[in-house]
Amino acid sequence: MTASQQASSTVESASAHQHASLIVRGRDSPGIVAAVAGVLREHHANIVSLDQYSDNPQGGAFFQRTVFSLDNLRAALPEIESALRERLAREFDLEFTVRDMSVPKRVAIFASKADHCLLDLLWRHRRGQLPITVPMVISNHTDTAEEVRGFGIPFVHVPTGDGEHSEVEAEHLRLLRGNVDLVVLARYMRILSGEFLSELGVPVINIHHSFLPAFIGAAPYAKAKQRGVKLIGATAHYVTEDLDQGPIIEQDVARVTHADTVTDLQRRGADVERTVLSRAVRWHCEDRVIRHDNGTIVFT
Amino acid sequence: MTASQQASSTVESASAHQHASLIVRGRDSPGIVAAVAGVLREHHANIVSLDQYSDNPQGGAFFQRTVFSLDNLRAALPEIESALRERLAREFDLEFTVRDMSVPKRVAIFASKADHCLLDLLWRHRRGQLPITVPMVISNHTDTAEEVRGFGIPFVHVPTGDGEHSEVEAEHLRLLRGNVDLVVLARYMRILSGEFLSELGVPVINIHHSFLPAFIGAAPYAKAKQRGVKLIGATAHYVTEDLDQGPIIEQDVARVTHADTVTDLQRRGADVERTVLSRAVRWHCEDRVIRHDNGTIVFT
Amino acid sequence: MTASQQASSTVESASAHQHASLIVRGRDSPGIVAAVAGVLREHHANIVSLDQYSDNPQGGAFFQRTVFSLDNLRAALPEIESALRERLAREFDLEFTVRDMSVPKRVAIFASKADHCLLDLLWRHRRGQLPITVPMVISNHTDTAEEVRGFGIPFVHVPTGDGEHSEVEAEHLRLLRGNVDLVVLARYMRILSGEFLSELGVPVINIHHSFLPAFIGAAPYAKAKQRGVKLIGATAHYVTEDLDQGPIIEQDVARVTHADTVTDLQRRGADVERTVLSRAVRWHCEDRVIRHDNGTIVFT
Amino acid sequence: MTASQQASSTVESASAHQHASLIVRGRDSPGIVAAVAGVLREHHANIVSLDQYSDNPQGGAFFQRTVFSLDNLRAALPEIESALRERLAREFDLEFTVRDMSVPKRVAIFASKADHCLLDLLWRHRRGQLPITVPMVISNHTDTAEEVRGFGIPFVHVPTGDGEHSEVEAEHLRLLRGNVDLVVLARYMRILSGEFLSELGVPVINIHHSFLPAFIGAAPYAKAKQRGVKLIGATAHYVTEDLDQGPIIEQDVARVTHADTVTDLQRRGADVERTVLSRAVRWHCEDRVIRHDNGTIVFT
Repeated sequence: MTASQQASSTVESASAHQHASLIVRGRDSPGIVAAVAGVLREHHANIVSLDQYSDNPQGGAFFQRTVFSLDNLRAALPEIESALRERLAREFDLEFTVRDMSVPKRVAIFASKADHCLLDLLWRHRRGQLPITVPMVISNHTDTAEEVRGFGIPFVHVPTGDGEHSEVEAEHLRLLRGNVDLVVLARYMRILSGEFLSELGVPVINIHHSFLPAFIGAAPYAKAKQRGVKLIGATAHYVTEDLDQGPIIEQDVARVTHADTVTDLQRRGADVERTVLSRAVRWHCEDRVIRHDNGTIVFT
Repeated sequence: MTASQQASSTVESASAHQHASLIVRGRDSPGIVAAVAGVLREHHANIVSLDQYSDNPQGGAFFQRTVFSLDNLRAALPEIESALRERLAREFDLEFTVRDMSVPKRVAIFASKADHCLLDLLWRHRRGQLPITVPMVISNHTDTAEEVRGFGIPFVHVPTGDGEHSEVEAEHLRLLRGNVDLVVLARYMRILSGEFLSELGVPVINIHHSFLPAFIGAAPYAKAKQRGVKLIGATAHYVTEDLDQGPIIEQDVARVTHADTVTDLQRRGADVERTVLSRAVRWHCEDRVIRHDNGTIVFT
Repeated sequence: MTASQQASSTVESASAHQHASLIVRGRDSPGIVAAVAGVLREHHANIVSLDQYSDNPQGGAFFQRTVFSLDNLRAALPEIESALRERLAREFDLEFTVRDMSVPKRVAIFASKADHCLLDLLWRHRRGQLPITVPMVISNHTDTAEEVRGFGIPFVHVPTGDGEHSEVEAEHLRLLRGNVDLVVLARYMRILSGEFLSELGVPVINIHHSFLPAFIGAAPYAKAKQRGVKLIGATAHYVTEDLDQGPIIEQDVARVTHADTVTDLQRRGADVERTVLSRAVRWHCEDRVIRHDNGTIVFT
Repeated sequence: MTASQQASSTVESASAHQHASLIVRGRDSPGIVAAVAGVLREHHANIVSLDQYSDNPQGGAFFQRTVFSLDNLRAALPEIESALRERLAREFDLEFTVRDMSVPKRVAIFASKADHCLLDLLWRHRRGQLPITVPMVISNHTDTAEEVRGFGIPFVHVPTGDGEHSEVEAEHLRLLRGNVDLVVLARYMRILSGEFLSELGVPVINIHHSFLPAFIGAAPYAKAKQRGVKLIGATAHYVTEDLDQGPIIEQDVARVTHADTVTDLQRRGADVERTVLSRAVRWHCEDRVIRHDNGTIVFT
């Protein structure tokens, strides 16, 4: 049994075999829940969990996450999908996606030299805490190669130092396109171009070492220390063309004092970063996160 | 406009006028969500929020909280109730309660000498943060009388020092029965008998100064200090005949150090207690808490 | 016994009668602790607590907070002060302040319409949790007048709507100068001029509803909600001419979700604000906070 | 450069080369700080940090942690030690220990099947976050052997299934005695006898999956879930003959809900356990923890 098989078979909570997630979103209007639940009932599916949110009951934006179970799920899914399409399209102004949760998402991890976020993801993956497979780790440095391969994961070195940025991104696209459902930047310290993001066509999650209040630009920890901050934090967000401005998935903080050196801040920051990123990846891969404008709905 | 009118008219989130809460519980089986949503749709109600939990999709215990809005809610409620009864009773093994959320719950607060939990509740009530009215505060001491009356709330002194315990409880019952939907023990330091609880017929919420790990019996703070605990906590729970063993609604902790004196622990403990109790009362009065065996489902 | 007498007599921890605080700061060099402790020993003072911090042992900035006890403290203090001056000035490049901790600091509180920070301070003051007296509350609105006077505290209404800003500040200076040791802005929504701060001559603490990451300018809560933040926070800081850029004393956060409305964010924000401000005021008044450049050393 | 050399050379904060820690404890009386600081001054040592605590200034228990730096520390240490002995023994009722902080503590880790606490320690060790060497990992199972050896750490399998308990402990003693300064039980699921602890002669730290409130005995997570707890926690403590009753070093909690399965609780519990244990080991090895009766003083 390989690590990734183990991951998909033992992952806890609702993400087990024979479960599907259904995300519905669009303009709120009376009767949506009844319509969705009606279709599921007609197909003898049992609702395992249902979360619903509307930002305004009077025609605002509507979001619903439903997890349902069904024997012979895989065989029945196309029919359910077509029934939902017919029903939701006819009566409502809604989009939806339905997905077999026993199929783990394929996640490529980008790293540079720092290993804390990368290893936490790989270690949780091996323990079966993340419903993912990791087809590859891509890094512009070789520092973590041995460790990554020790987890049974392919490590691909794509140096960024010399040559055109566009050539590096072309190499990334050759590796990724068609092979992954998500890219995670685990402290990968390079900017991705808008063209790359649009050609890639799958979501990208980044971890940002943000402070409270945010310190922008170079040497953020030194600036934070000068200001005497009492909390440091981290933010996991989707990557958009506007650097570090994408929708926030998760944030957390740790308490610090004047006695913490810049090295101490970095150590505590690393602990928060790995926790926040792992949580964001898990939630994304359990279909708990819905992007909406520049924000997110997170059904935890 | 009185304080309590203000409370019920300005309370935030879903608890506004024209909203009703519907709690459904019983044995899980396919089709419950569809049945409930179908009834609401037939009555042109719009689902504002829906939370659902099942402890086992294969015939486990099922819990659902639905908030819906409807013009002319008050007039339509009896019909909806009867339609739900007919539908849920016929097809499923379910109980339900439906409630007009614009009607604030009537909450009696019991206090002794300590004022921190009592004042936090009254202050939040006045700010419109709790969907409640407070018909009376009952105390076995007079320390807080002036302050309570300053909030425009009746204060009733029922001494417990002399006389039979049963006479005190009889006096309590005379004051409470028919007049309240909830009793909150805001650091009321007397035990309630099983007879009292059963004759009272409404839930009672208590705040317990519990530690991690719990220190039972007299002088818990001194024992905690001897053991060198690093966190102190508080627990809000429903009162049952077994003292301090009832279903937990909410808990929280604060960090302490060896340098904290017993007085410091008490001050920090008081801060946690008032926060935890206020949260528990708000959640209960927004119909977010469902008791199940000796635990709770809390839809926050 | 008045409320403020009660405060100064029952306040917990080291701030009791017969205790003095000694703050020493300057350039680090070997022997400072020995010199300070030597002077105290010669005067038969007992060190109750000692915290020391140096940002660089090789000639960096040195900070020390010492609390000592002594019978007949008040009589002995001038002698100790003069011995410290002679010793620390002769051998080291150091400043110091020594203060009888039984004398509560005189704190004026500025408020506008919001009452949550104001009432939390007054309530903790009455419970004896803050080593302060409150000679006056100044507000540009009358909303909180009755409540403030209910605590036995003078309330002064200084409207800001019409007339010159400088006249308002002149009125403030007439009230404050010589009468207070600290000014606390408890959600006072007006900017203080540099002239005012310099003529006032005592520290001013403000509470800022800062976010993670910070949202600057108008409607911060709406902006935060759009970005999908998962934490909101508050920052207590000393006021400097640069608005909201002064040294940070304390910060904290609360977790929020997409389901929280702007009203919910404000309620949770208010809870964090009052907690953070009260902590900052207590620490300042227990001489635990040392300003250094644009940061702080906080010995908690 | 080996991993352990890296650890001792790059570990942050005060634990660098040329630093020593001095722990003083005993009966409080005036002049202790002056005496200690005087001795250090006479030897031209510079105090880098000083924390002091007394549980009662009138003859209570006194504790002081001092970190000082000195060129040629190793050569000077015996002289300083002897001067301290002479001075503190002559005038006061005090014990002390002084230690060269550039010498990492030798830590043996005991594990069973679970790897989360073990790997977190080894990973932090490799990153230079713990001032320790790890001469061996001892386990009664072989599950983690390959991973441990991948860190360059000897793995010793000492099965416990068959044979006398005393034989197992004898084997442990042969491996450990003289070779280690600390034993860490990283989810080692076997009880240690009082004889073993006393023959071992070095401290033992355990991580306990304690709850709020504590659930004792078998199946604690299932019991916690039944009671509806909202927080789960972990406690790191020194091991004494009374199982799980030893002095607490550190505790922390994580928030859980009714929707968390027992598997979820275990995953969140594991996260808290590894964080709390790593913190406790770091603090112990930086000489920040002083045992006192059945509690601890922790200077963080």
